[in-house]
Amino acid sequence: MTHSRPSLAVVGATGVIGGVMLQILSQHADVWGEVKLISSPRSAGRKLVVRGAETEVLALHEDVFDGVDVALFLVPDDVSARWAPVAVAKGAVVIDDSAAFRMDDDVPLVVPEINSHAARLRPRGIVASPHCTTLSLIVAVGALHAEFGLRELIVSSYQAVSGAGREGVAALREELSLVAGTELGTHPGDVRRALGDGGASPFAAPVALNVVPWAGTDAGHGWSSEEIAIRQECRKILSLPNLRATATCVYVPVVATHSMSVHARFENEVPVHRAHEILATAPGVVLFDSPAAGDFPTPSDVVGTDPTWVGRVRQSMDDPRALEMFICGDNLRKGAALNIAQIAESVAAEFPRT
Amino acid sequence: MTHSRPSLAVVGATGVIGGVMLQILSQHADVWGEVKLISSPRSAGRKLVVRGAETEVLALHEDVFDGVDVALFLVPDDVSARWAPVAVAKGAVVIDDSAAFRMDDDVPLVVPEINSHAARLRPRGIVASPHCTTLSLIVAVGALHAEFGLRELIVSSYQAVSGAGREGVAALREELSLVAGTELGTHPGDVRRALGDGGASPFAAPVALNVVPWAGTDAGHGWSSEEIAIRQECRKILSLPNLRATATCVYVPVVATHSMSVHARFENEVPVHRAHEILATAPGVVLFDSPAAGDFPTPSDVVGTDPTWVGRVRQSMDDPRALEMFICGDNLRKGAALNIAQIAESVAAEFPRT
Repeated sequence: MTHSRPSLAVVGATGVIGGVMLQILSQHADVWGEVKLISSPRSAGRKLVVRGAETEVLALHEDVFDGVDVALFLVPDDVSARWAPVAVAKGAVVIDDSAAFRMDDDVPLVVPEINSHAARLRPRGIVASPHCTTLSLIVAVGALHAEFGLRELIVSSYQAVSGAGREGVAALREELSLVAGTELGTHPGDVRRALGDGGASPFAAPVALNVVPWAGTDAGHGWSSEEIAIRQECRKILSLPNLRATATCVYVPVVATHSMSVHARFENEVPVHRAHEILATAPGVVLFDSPAAGDFPTPSDVVGTDPTWVGRVRQSMDDPRALEMFICGDNLRKGAALNIAQIAESVAAEFPRT
Repeated sequence: MTHSRPSLAVVGATGVIGGVMLQILSQHADVWGEVKLISSPRSAGRKLVVRGAETEVLALHEDVFDGVDVALFLVPDDVSARWAPVAVAKGAVVIDDSAAFRMDDDVPLVVPEINSHAARLRPRGIVASPHCTTLSLIVAVGALHAEFGLRELIVSSYQAVSGAGREGVAALREELSLVAGTELGTHPGDVRRALGDGGASPFAAPVALNVVPWAGTDAGHGWSSEEIAIRQECRKILSLPNLRATATCVYVPVVATHSMSVHARFENEVPVHRAHEILATAPGVVLFDSPAAGDFPTPSDVVGTDPTWVGRVRQSMDDPRALEMFICGDNLRKGAALNIAQIAESVAAEFPRT
């Protein structure tokens, strides 16, 4: 019996992450048979280029999953919750970027550099990819955990506005065009007043010339949903159900690439030179750490690249088992499309070759 | 014997902090006799308004301190190191904003809300004011310490560019004028390329559409000088020489007002409602903490105001003795000029009134 290469569906092909996914599919070694591009009926009929071929976008519908082996869902939570089981029922393995299934005990949450084995056991036929904030730090932290045994994470984020989608980027660009060249930013509330309450910003405060310490929705007891997600997802991916983990999520006026200030405490002592050795050789990590020479990661360096960049590695002066680090990762690449593509390629390898 | 009101000298009157100081002297209850404005010879001769009167700026020289009771030094470290002892020798009490004397055992480091008593014992005739990053968090943290007993601080900063002086603000405004209205910020290094290496930015990387995890100079073992300053100054101000304290200092594209994500662990349990009660009544603190209703401090709300603003107060899910908080303080007001003015007014009260 022969079996052709597995077929792929990209649901949400016309979105921000969909666009990055089409680039990645055109750049990576091609393991796919047919590739279907799928979107809401509103965007269907558009033609997009993938693997060098102009391809018409199909409307999301049950029949579109006929003959699909692997379906990537790059859509909001509610769309995934409704349509991923439909694709599974049609025989597809679903790899989902939304939060709909991440904490489901029967859905593995996978970062290939850390727990690629988990993708093979998927009782619901679904593999979930973590939130972009988790992905921006877990590759580096996971490599250190394998050597030193992670016990506690205290994270403060510097999140890019594209983490809130196209609307986030549009809000920053519109606000910047109003404040650039002005004296705004030196008097209380002047940025708020200049911006008015017009526009459709997804942020609860101005993000130009400002920082906004709130990401996601109200998760109770003062926490935001993204802060809880980092805690729960790190525990699940690292198989550390009792890991102490605390996050404070803050949007900053950066277009793409999330940064994280990380305090990580381990079971064992962590000399900086050993941490450097591990990070310098860990898959998916770039070590960039000579701060006195100006070498530390910033979003401007990291945006558009695949790896997680790590710098400012310091051993705590109070506890030889703790490290401070500054970590940057492109929230649209490793933080979303790239991680999905990596999972999909590992699933594709399960299919028998002709 | 009669004694007129104490005379004051403002050294560095033409700088950014000097400008804020003149505003404060014009707004606060007037406790001063003569007020001399002093600057480098380059800026001397200019006329500035203080307390409603146009006043000529005098050049810094030994004789200018004749008859001065209290001298405020709002100048770089090297200028303070050289000239503060000259003013003391002439009989003045010096209140110094620079880092020159902060860690000197014979110089008290004073935040009036926390340790006003310390200003009265000054063996060298000098009282130091903390770094703006320390000042942006210590008032709130000190109030909680008095109740719960502080044991550990882990701080990540979101520092305004005015912390790097006029050059920092100029660099941000110039960079913003280049990137606003463009698609910059979505491709690796494009902000760096657009900005070139021209200009005289005090930052080691672009600060528009970016964050820069380096503040100050190289303090060894990977630490920046501002990170070490926060640790040492918190220990000294709170009289906790063994306090565990770690900071990561990051510049963000904000004009004025430093923000801090703070993990604070105490000796005793800290229920959020008790922390709220303490912060709501602590002098110099504004509690602004209803995040689900959009009420949390951001620089745009806080800039130009005197107090430290606190929000996002959460009890750690792993340790009932730990709190997470987001704290904002205007680095030019409480972070510099206001704290100096408060110390000066307490020293003025020591002088006998007629």
